[in-house]
Amino acid sequence: MTRTPPHRFQPLDSGAVPRFAGPATFMRLPLAEPHEVDIALVGVPFDGGTTNRTGARHGPREIRNQSSLVRRVHHVTGLSPFDALRVADCGDAPVNPLDATESLTLIETFFRQICAGGARPLTVGGDHLVTLPILRGLRPAAPLGLIHFDAHSDTYDSFFGNRYNHGTPFRRAVEEGLLDPARMIQIGIRGAVSDAANYDWARAVGIRIVFMEEFVARGPADVMAEARAIVGDRPTYVSFDIDGIDPSMAPGTGTPEIGGFTTREAQMLVRLLGGLDIAGADLVEVSPPLDPTGLTALTGATMLFEILCAMTARERADVEPS
Amino acid sequence: MTRTPPHRFQPLDSGAVPRFAGPATFMRLPLAEPHEVDIALVGVPFDGGTTNRTGARHGPREIRNQSSLVRRVHHVTGLSPFDALRVADCGDAPVNPLDATESLTLIETFFRQICAGGARPLTVGGDHLVTLPILRGLRPAAPLGLIHFDAHSDTYDSFFGNRYNHGTPFRRAVEEGLLDPARMIQIGIRGAVSDAANYDWARAVGIRIVFMEEFVARGPADVMAEARAIVGDRPTYVSFDIDGIDPSMAPGTGTPEIGGFTTREAQMLVRLLGGLDIAGADLVEVSPPLDPTGLTALTGATMLFEILCAMTARERADVEPS
Amino acid sequence: MTRTPPHRFQPLDSGAVPRFAGPATFMRLPLAEPHEVDIALVGVPFDGGTTNRTGARHGPREIRNQSSLVRRVHHVTGLSPFDALRVADCGDAPVNPLDATESLTLIETFFRQICAGGARPLTVGGDHLVTLPILRGLRPAAPLGLIHFDAHSDTYDSFFGNRYNHGTPFRRAVEEGLLDPARMIQIGIRGAVSDAANYDWARAVGIRIVFMEEFVARGPADVMAEARAIVGDRPTYVSFDIDGIDPSMAPGTGTPEIGGFTTREAQMLVRLLGGLDIAGADLVEVSPPLDPTGLTALTGATMLFEILCAMTARERADVEPS
Amino acid sequence: MTRTPPHRFQPLDSGAVPRFAGPATFMRLPLAEPHEVDIALVGVPFDGGTTNRTGARHGPREIRNQSSLVRRVHHVTGLSPFDALRVADCGDAPVNPLDATESLTLIETFFRQICAGGARPLTVGGDHLVTLPILRGLRPAAPLGLIHFDAHSDTYDSFFGNRYNHGTPFRRAVEEGLLDPARMIQIGIRGAVSDAANYDWARAVGIRIVFMEEFVARGPADVMAEARAIVGDRPTYVSFDIDGIDPSMAPGTGTPEIGGFTTREAQMLVRLLGGLDIAGADLVEVSPPLDPTGLTALTGATMLFEILCAMTARERADVEPS
Amino acid sequence: MTRTPPHRFQPLDSGAVPRFAGPATFMRLPLAEPHEVDIALVGVPFDGGTTNRTGARHGPREIRNQSSLVRRVHHVTGLSPFDALRVADCGDAPVNPLDATESLTLIETFFRQICAGGARPLTVGGDHLVTLPILRGLRPAAPLGLIHFDAHSDTYDSFFGNRYNHGTPFRRAVEEGLLDPARMIQIGIRGAVSDAANYDWARAVGIRIVFMEEFVARGPADVMAEARAIVGDRPTYVSFDIDGIDPSMAPGTGTPEIGGFTTREAQMLVRLLGGLDIAGADLVEVSPPLDPTGLTALTGATMLFEILCAMTARERADVEPS
Amino acid sequence: MTRTPPHRFQPLDSGAVPRFAGPATFMRLPLAEPHEVDIALVGVPFDGGTTNRTGARHGPREIRNQSSLVRRVHHVTGLSPFDALRVADCGDAPVNPLDATESLTLIETFFRQICAGGARPLTVGGDHLVTLPILRGLRPAAPLGLIHFDAHSDTYDSFFGNRYNHGTPFRRAVEEGLLDPARMIQIGIRGAVSDAANYDWARAVGIRIVFMEEFVARGPADVMAEARAIVGDRPTYVSFDIDGIDPSMAPGTGTPEIGGFTTREAQMLVRLLGGLDIAGADLVEVSPPLDPTGLTALTGATMLFEILCAMTARERADVEPS
Repeated sequence: MTRTPPHRFQPLDSGAVPRFAGPATFMRLPLAEPHEVDIALVGVPFDGGTTNRTGARHGPREIRNQSSLVRRVHHVTGLSPFDALRVADCGDAPVNPLDATESLTLIETFFRQICAGGARPLTVGGDHLVTLPILRGLRPAAPLGLIHFDAHSDTYDSFFGNRYNHGTPFRRAVEEGLLDPARMIQIGIRGAVSDAANYDWARAVGIRIVFMEEFVARGPADVMAEARAIVGDRPTYVSFDIDGIDPSMAPGTGTPEIGGFTTREAQMLVRLLGGLDIAGADLVEVSPPLDPTGLTALTGATMLFEILCAMTARERADVEPS
Repeated sequence: MTRTPPHRFQPLDSGAVPRFAGPATFMRLPLAEPHEVDIALVGVPFDGGTTNRTGARHGPREIRNQSSLVRRVHHVTGLSPFDALRVADCGDAPVNPLDATESLTLIETFFRQICAGGARPLTVGGDHLVTLPILRGLRPAAPLGLIHFDAHSDTYDSFFGNRYNHGTPFRRAVEEGLLDPARMIQIGIRGAVSDAANYDWARAVGIRIVFMEEFVARGPADVMAEARAIVGDRPTYVSFDIDGIDPSMAPGTGTPEIGGFTTREAQMLVRLLGGLDIAGADLVEVSPPLDPTGLTALTGATMLFEILCAMTARERADVEPS
Repeated sequence: MTRTPPHRFQPLDSGAVPRFAGPATFMRLPLAEPHEVDIALVGVPFDGGTTNRTGARHGPREIRNQSSLVRRVHHVTGLSPFDALRVADCGDAPVNPLDATESLTLIETFFRQICAGGARPLTVGGDHLVTLPILRGLRPAAPLGLIHFDAHSDTYDSFFGNRYNHGTPFRRAVEEGLLDPARMIQIGIRGAVSDAANYDWARAVGIRIVFMEEFVARGPADVMAEARAIVGDRPTYVSFDIDGIDPSMAPGTGTPEIGGFTTREAQMLVRLLGGLDIAGADLVEVSPPLDPTGLTALTGATMLFEILCAMTARERADVEPS
Repeated sequence: MTRTPPHRFQPLDSGAVPRFAGPATFMRLPLAEPHEVDIALVGVPFDGGTTNRTGARHGPREIRNQSSLVRRVHHVTGLSPFDALRVADCGDAPVNPLDATESLTLIETFFRQICAGGARPLTVGGDHLVTLPILRGLRPAAPLGLIHFDAHSDTYDSFFGNRYNHGTPFRRAVEEGLLDPARMIQIGIRGAVSDAANYDWARAVGIRIVFMEEFVARGPADVMAEARAIVGDRPTYVSFDIDGIDPSMAPGTGTPEIGGFTTREAQMLVRLLGGLDIAGADLVEVSPPLDPTGLTALTGATMLFEILCAMTARERADVEPS
Repeated sequence: MTRTPPHRFQPLDSGAVPRFAGPATFMRLPLAEPHEVDIALVGVPFDGGTTNRTGARHGPREIRNQSSLVRRVHHVTGLSPFDALRVADCGDAPVNPLDATESLTLIETFFRQICAGGARPLTVGGDHLVTLPILRGLRPAAPLGLIHFDAHSDTYDSFFGNRYNHGTPFRRAVEEGLLDPARMIQIGIRGAVSDAANYDWARAVGIRIVFMEEFVARGPADVMAEARAIVGDRPTYVSFDIDGIDPSMAPGTGTPEIGGFTTREAQMLVRLLGGLDIAGADLVEVSPPLDPTGLTALTGATMLFEILCAMTARERADVEPS
Repeated sequence: MTRTPPHRFQPLDSGAVPRFAGPATFMRLPLAEPHEVDIALVGVPFDGGTTNRTGARHGPREIRNQSSLVRRVHHVTGLSPFDALRVADCGDAPVNPLDATESLTLIETFFRQICAGGARPLTVGGDHLVTLPILRGLRPAAPLGLIHFDAHSDTYDSFFGNRYNHGTPFRRAVEEGLLDPARMIQIGIRGAVSDAANYDWARAVGIRIVFMEEFVARGPADVMAEARAIVGDRPTYVSFDIDGIDPSMAPGTGTPEIGGFTTREAQMLVRLLGGLDIAGADLVEVSPPLDPTGLTALTGATMLFEILCAMTARERADVEPS
């Protein structure tokens, strides 16, 4: 069968070029400049905000590698993001592995340029601190909504006296007016905490936290209906920390927490994002050195494709979220 | 307690010979010629039909190794296949790792001899292409029914211009009259596809595809009731691709796809095969080099025992499938 | 925020001392003598009762290592065991890796001393044989109840002619009057057995066995309601074999069996122990050499914290089990 | 310090762009077309000629990944190949993983185009069969000399009745007039053989075989003096099988053989190639799935740089081989 | 070429049956009874004498697996042991993993039967304690000489109050009159010791200890000339502990010690055994769970072939040791 | 034999307490305060100066774990450091994983306190940046000499615009007057460099660099004679970067470089330090996440014992360096 693609930003054809061949780019897409595309797949190889086990700096490269297994048409929705939109690998943000402060600036500038060109970013981290400069770079006209999948709330005020690390990005983002706490929901939070007052700030500002126990009781459809209501039809950011998923399915991450989402649940959750006004999204905290088998990056790459489809759905008004 | 076995084809007694001792055979059974047994456990160490990540050629040997953990009585049904039937390790089919065409012939001949002796084969692959020459070797009087557990439909027409590979066996088998598409069901299919028309052929010829999403919604009992109705009481082949199971439980396979069967579900599915007229069965795509921990082969070996019990159930009319 | 701890037995503050720093003790607690504490975290690095794959002797050390990720407040119950009780790392029981008989005596004596000082032991094995000398050391005034999570019943009479190994501890404990079979329940038992008469003894003496299939059908709440009724409000021992959990989540164990508890289920089960009169508890059969990734020990360390919280709950009458 | 590069084919500056950032290309060089460069770094991801353990198809990608550690100036000779010549990553040859015959044609054509453009190829395999179509693609005016580092002679006539596999390329190349047996030397050959007549053909046609035992006795300088004399100042091909190196230093290969070159020896050997008229070179048989640590690919990437420097030396007449 | 083998005890032909096919036996040889052969390859899967890290019980099976890579003709001496002698896989000695004392008896009896049938044993351990019951089973007419390659002397009197463990076999064997200390040499001993008096007993009874430092200074030829002089032309046992080899080349062992033999040196040492009157030999302490890559077992399997050739050399008077 | 230790700082007796038992401290020594000991074994779990692959923050803990294999008497010199001196595990320096500048201060203060108490530090890193604050903490009366084993000179001026990272410590230390460049020697330097001017600064200030190629040509004895002459009999610091050793023997490090020291050579080198006036020493850059087998940490632990013996030798005037 011959199919004429609507533009040149097409993945390599796995029936002609084997999946293991050639340099690895995200989803075997061409390299391009952000201004050429609708959605820019980019990496932020920075883990200088990590308090315990590092390695997420290697996330973009290994997810590029494993994403060679990604295919082109979503089997449930029938969506083909590469037909609907121009999507490409726009490379990695510049970072300074020895200077977190400078890195925050470099990353912000990089994303400002992406947005200036009209593309929406779909980012691979890096640790969760990178979400902060991404949000800064987006320069939203009004504070964004947030749907956040994670084992941890990441709304601490500081660690080790430091206010900019992977446990604090969402507190900073609210303080800086980048996110609207009334339109924020965190799903999958779980595990013992260092302090009983752990979630007090988040609750005080109005962030909705759905603990794993509540999620298990209610199921994905019910929780996502609430999430969609919370963010509404205004611009929303999606952040997916791989440690939201169970460590049996995503062991390569710095702060694993048992009892996580199954990948099936994670897929259901992300599919239920379809149709929202997603201004940008990220997938963070994949640490390849902590998983020599590559399973975590494979899981991450597959979730990246799911998120991409969710970002595409709105463009295709004819496609209903399943 | 002393038990007098009904025949010599008994696994080593793990209370007398440690599980780690001696050369590894399937389930610690004796080596035998096919004509001596009712069910022949055999290997087909061939992965020349693999389009991406190879290694399934090493499947039979590592499953022999891990199958030392298999015990003798099914704890749910009470079935003891080694009491009910003569089962043995009948070695590996001859293959030519450098010549797929010759291998297809060698494998077919090997299975023809097994069937000629009156045994039913329970095979360990190898990649999924090996199912084709097995079916040819069975020389069924009429096209067989098929119950097929897998992440992928494997009904492509060709890859890289090649019509005989691990993505095409079931299309070829239907075309050759080995399988009856009206009596075929594929369960667990999932994941993005390369082309929206991916399943058109399968649907056109009448193959029933149960996507993972449908399976999750309906559950094993309901799906298997349908499967049993589809194949009926006539001779049926069972093919179990290990990638049907979730990659957290079976990471060592060439084309992993997240969101798969849990092993609990897989066990329920296979137990519900009991009583069917199973002409033969296989378990394929275990690639040991991709899983140094051995978990995939352990999962495979346990599923092999479950399939063996399902093949035994009909012989023991007094045993109801659970 | 400043919090004045009620006593000196506090974990290191992970906001001041990184989790990767310093020698590893259980949950980053101080080392102490048993008589100083309410609950003694101890190791029993002995696997001389293992019939197949060894390595559980390394369990205590690796669980110490991974338990650096444990935090201090249970996010569901709000319980903080380190506030409610004095808990410390009381080191390892002496063992003789070359002499099981002597080890049984050494371990028993060690636990006798712990109990003499008034502490309750929470033990990390070692293989499951270690439960027997622990129970002997407890010298219960009356036979204890038992809630036992495991893939295997461990009520064999002997293996290889030997009556003291990791397949027999609960039979010996009943025979020795340490456990009351009428107050014993085993949950999660599964997998093929070597002999159809495998569970006859256990059933004959009145031990309640909940197979995995029954557990799946009924769910944690229903099963634990029965378990609580069986043991009642009298002193009860809790034994958690890591192989009760699915091998995808706890691969590093000597006798893995697919189809196990998910960690979510395991957490629910243990949380439902809260309020019982727990005389002691153990977590056994973590074999680190069989899992280089450390996931099994992480799972074990997290379950250890859950058990600790369950042991704490009764002390805090105001806290209801969730 | 500011350095103005003589042309645009420069590796990324590791003092500005971290080594872990961005998509991986060979030595962090730009992607380019062969006709733009003097030396084309290319991959041939084909292992369909492998008789036992496969995986070399993944070699080019993982060597790209590990080659991010390569630097730019040789510390012994002072040679900087990226200053002296235009070197780039020219991608992978097309291959058909399901058809060895077609792959031989595809590869040959690919190399013919490289040579037509005036570049010399430095290739990463793939298994050793790929050397044959490379040599065919070079279309040498006269048979080439060969310096060949390997554990195996690869001059068999056939395996499994097949004449084109990774055990036969040098026999075929001699038969086809691509190599001049009188100007061929194989160094590092070792290990038991399947037949006492194993080397009879090679000796009969005049190929010089230096067994490892002879190499150890004589040392690199003496052996390479002989090698240089054998090939003389005429065009010569260099083939480096990673299994020439000891499996402790390069475990990820299909046919490991203990007692191999140390990497120090391998470096000395390759440095002594400097000044020869090298028409092309390859490094083959790196099988990443067999070495999850990446050490083999790191060793391969470093040797690739050494070979590149040797290929550069002749261009810089002022530089003496060390 | 057609070769008519002198008897049926031939390895599978790797040009016809791929190395990865079929159940694994030592060197792909047939299974046989000891009385049928000249040299019996046997396993002793026992590690109950291990004081620290276990796993050697799995040695025989994994060495069987890796020994599929062994070929049939020694490339230096030209010796083909399978032509010169009848060699087969005679299975594993019976052991009781829960009872070291009984195991010593079982093993001794097994080897007595081997010797009674006229075969010489070449054994794969197991830990080093197994050498003691092997020597007892040999029932030598006069105390044997010993050439012993190891990092450790294994002449302790006891560990943990136990006189029969892997640190004591050679002391016991001398005390029992199985070995003649005046004809014993230990080569490669190294590493810090627990006590300055560590070697006093060995020296007092006349055992020659060649520390690694002396070996490095003198080289294999000189040391082996001394070894051959010490044991003379009378019956001698050869014991090879894999930890004699450097842990980079044999990491999977319970007591690794850096600075060991390279495999090249190990091969030279064993080749220089040729022509001695070798009554039996063993290779011990390979612990596969400690080396998931299989390199240690590959090294072990290759050394096993070298030892086999050394045991064959005397039978072929025409072959000189190289 | 009964031995009365001269003081309480003795390792656990491995003949009474198994090596795998109990919490892991360096060499199984007691925990102590620095002022109680002559030599303080300490960790600095900091890798914030790493430019590429991190993980050295986990070095101290894993080396504690593997150092359980260390014994007490050096087999060549007969030195027993635990008899000659008081040596203990004095814990880890405080660090801030999110703030390199603060960490430098914290580390310096920690070492100042160690020295104030009269102990000499033997440190386990951490990345190589930690040597700088150690030297600052030593507050030497006059600039120290340095014997430095490494693959890299670590005398860069800056990376990514940053002057304090693991590529610059020795330049900073010279600039700050902590080291005397005329009494500095670096041994084992090798590998390609980013710039031809790489070593210009080091040479200009008078640092002696012995490249690996020179070391191979001259051998350990000759090179160390020169080293001893360079530092003379005045206070000298010893710094051992694990990447000086070959990556086959120490793969778990961030910047591996093939062609390194064998462990035998490394042991020879360190033994030849005996008798020097060693003011302190460190072993750095062991990154456990990059080596799941633990071999690197085992190598590191053994080298740590060798360095400890070298530091002890001067105290025991009767012991000659071997």
